[in-house]
Amino acid sequence: MDHSTITGVYLSETLDLDGLYGDLLRAQAPDITVLRPEEVTDPEAISFALCWLPGAAAFDPYPNLKVAMSIGAGVDALLAHPGLRDGMRVARVRDPHQADLMAGFAVHEVLHDERGFGRMADCARRAEWRPEPMRAPEAATVAVLGNGTMGRAVARGCAALGFDVRIACRSIPDEPMEGVTYCAGDAGIAEAAEGADYLINVLPLTEATRDVLNAGLFARLAPGARLIQIGRGEHLVEADLTAALDGGQLAGATLDVFREEPLPKDHPFWQDDRLRITPHVASDSIPEIVVAQAIETARALRDGTPLTYAVDPARGY
Amino acid sequence: MDHSTITGVYLSETLDLDGLYGDLLRAQAPDITVLRPEEVTDPEAISFALCWLPGAAAFDPYPNLKVAMSIGAGVDALLAHPGLRDGMRVARVRDPHQADLMAGFAVHEVLHDERGFGRMADCARRAEWRPEPMRAPEAATVAVLGNGTMGRAVARGCAALGFDVRIACRSIPDEPMEGVTYCAGDAGIAEAAEGADYLINVLPLTEATRDVLNAGLFARLAPGARLIQIGRGEHLVEADLTAALDGGQLAGATLDVFREEPLPKDHPFWQDDRLRITPHVASDSIPEIVVAQAIETARALRDGTPLTYAVDPARGY
Repeated sequence: MDHSTITGVYLSETLDLDGLYGDLLRAQAPDITVLRPEEVTDPEAISFALCWLPGAAAFDPYPNLKVAMSIGAGVDALLAHPGLRDGMRVARVRDPHQADLMAGFAVHEVLHDERGFGRMADCARRAEWRPEPMRAPEAATVAVLGNGTMGRAVARGCAALGFDVRIACRSIPDEPMEGVTYCAGDAGIAEAAEGADYLINVLPLTEATRDVLNAGLFARLAPGARLIQIGRGEHLVEADLTAALDGGQLAGATLDVFREEPLPKDHPFWQDDRLRITPHVASDSIPEIVVAQAIETARALRDGTPLTYAVDPARGY
Repeated sequence: MDHSTITGVYLSETLDLDGLYGDLLRAQAPDITVLRPEEVTDPEAISFALCWLPGAAAFDPYPNLKVAMSIGAGVDALLAHPGLRDGMRVARVRDPHQADLMAGFAVHEVLHDERGFGRMADCARRAEWRPEPMRAPEAATVAVLGNGTMGRAVARGCAALGFDVRIACRSIPDEPMEGVTYCAGDAGIAEAAEGADYLINVLPLTEATRDVLNAGLFARLAPGARLIQIGRGEHLVEADLTAALDGGQLAGATLDVFREEPLPKDHPFWQDDRLRITPHVASDSIPEIVVAQAIETARALRDGTPLTYAVDPARGY
């Protein structure tokens, strides 16, 4: 194995990546150097970048950049980046903790409404003891859009609590999860949504999935269903959501991602009490995992071995 | 098999059991008759009772009563019933949905605090976008007290979301759950609690477990831990809970069961905003399951075959 050093750069317009990961990286990989752009004296030596929302011209100074690695699971912005050149690869962190976090967020939101925790909190404030009947978990249908690392974790979490779970996927996996129904192919999303009580979106953002959360899909759900939107803001047609809420087709929605983030102060969503708004926290990257996979990627690039965390640009994830 | 009929009686001071289960029973088991006490003309013909909190003299009119079956999982009140005679057996419903419901309740309460949903709701009311860092699920330790149907479901639900899960149990099961730590024997409860961030109580109520949630156990938890009390009211030493909250050893607690239910209007717990109070709804019995197991029990009694749902009075569950 080649133990020569390899040099990369942090590229982000919104995060201090060196502050988040620098100490861990230096401690664990003396053979790898990652610099802030202003520290780079030899741009030709830079062969990889750790990225989160890099600026439009961020890649341009580095003629030998081979890999742009996202610290998060969403790579739509990176794959569409205007500075991406022929021969450059996009990679991303694949973090089981990230998937567990997302599953926990989704499961909380399903349970919160299914079990009436909001209503119970109101009763408790008035010292009112008012139990209400509940249905069996299997009587509630949860449709999960997406069968990647995230979708599988969300489905597993819901299935472990007895819910009737469907997954919309491209193709039925070789090792299907027990007790989960797979809805495969082009019609899979519509099929999974049919009569569902909860619709959880964890699709990657691609040209095929943009605007997928629209009036047509909402109309397939059970009346009074709930949307849990933890994919990307661009999946949702906002006006269609408001109309579905006004018409009663949806009883409410949890929105964690938005077309513009932070969600602007004057956006009407903030004032709509049928919505629960959270600040893009369904998941997070765990520094230890990001650093371990960044190290693995940098060394694979140096040693010419396969890039485990590379993204297939044709599929978009 | 004997296809003669068998006759039972509904006994409850608080629930209309005929209203809940009568139609289902009549539709599914023409060989079984269950009467309200006021409908019984031949008390000697009554051989089983479907019970929920029967009155102190409820069993007395029926000299040939052989089985008292609880519609719920908790049989402490039934086993301690003054009317229980030699030769009478106590049975209970064992309902996987009931366990799934309880797991859902517990998982919601863990996630609600772990992920700061209360804080986020406050921020949303002020249209404030304020994400906070989160830890990996495995960095949070969840101690589950009890390894029965309920305890296992709660542990499975938490483990499916990546939490570090320990179960306090009498003995290590033959088929341990993957990724779960078992703390067995007399010291198991204390061992499971050691440094835990969440303490979930689903123990059965026995002489050995009464008052088990006390100052000594709270002191073992991680500072700022949370209690999720979904066992029985008699498990909790209420004054010790208040002291642990006042001293900061506990940051909060969810209480679903109480020594007196409904929780009296003037009980100070209602006014304590470190507590979340729910009206004994962590689980519920699903009529279809109760009826199926009541039918199976009545037929086994008639046919002299083993009573699958009988309770071991020595163990108390």
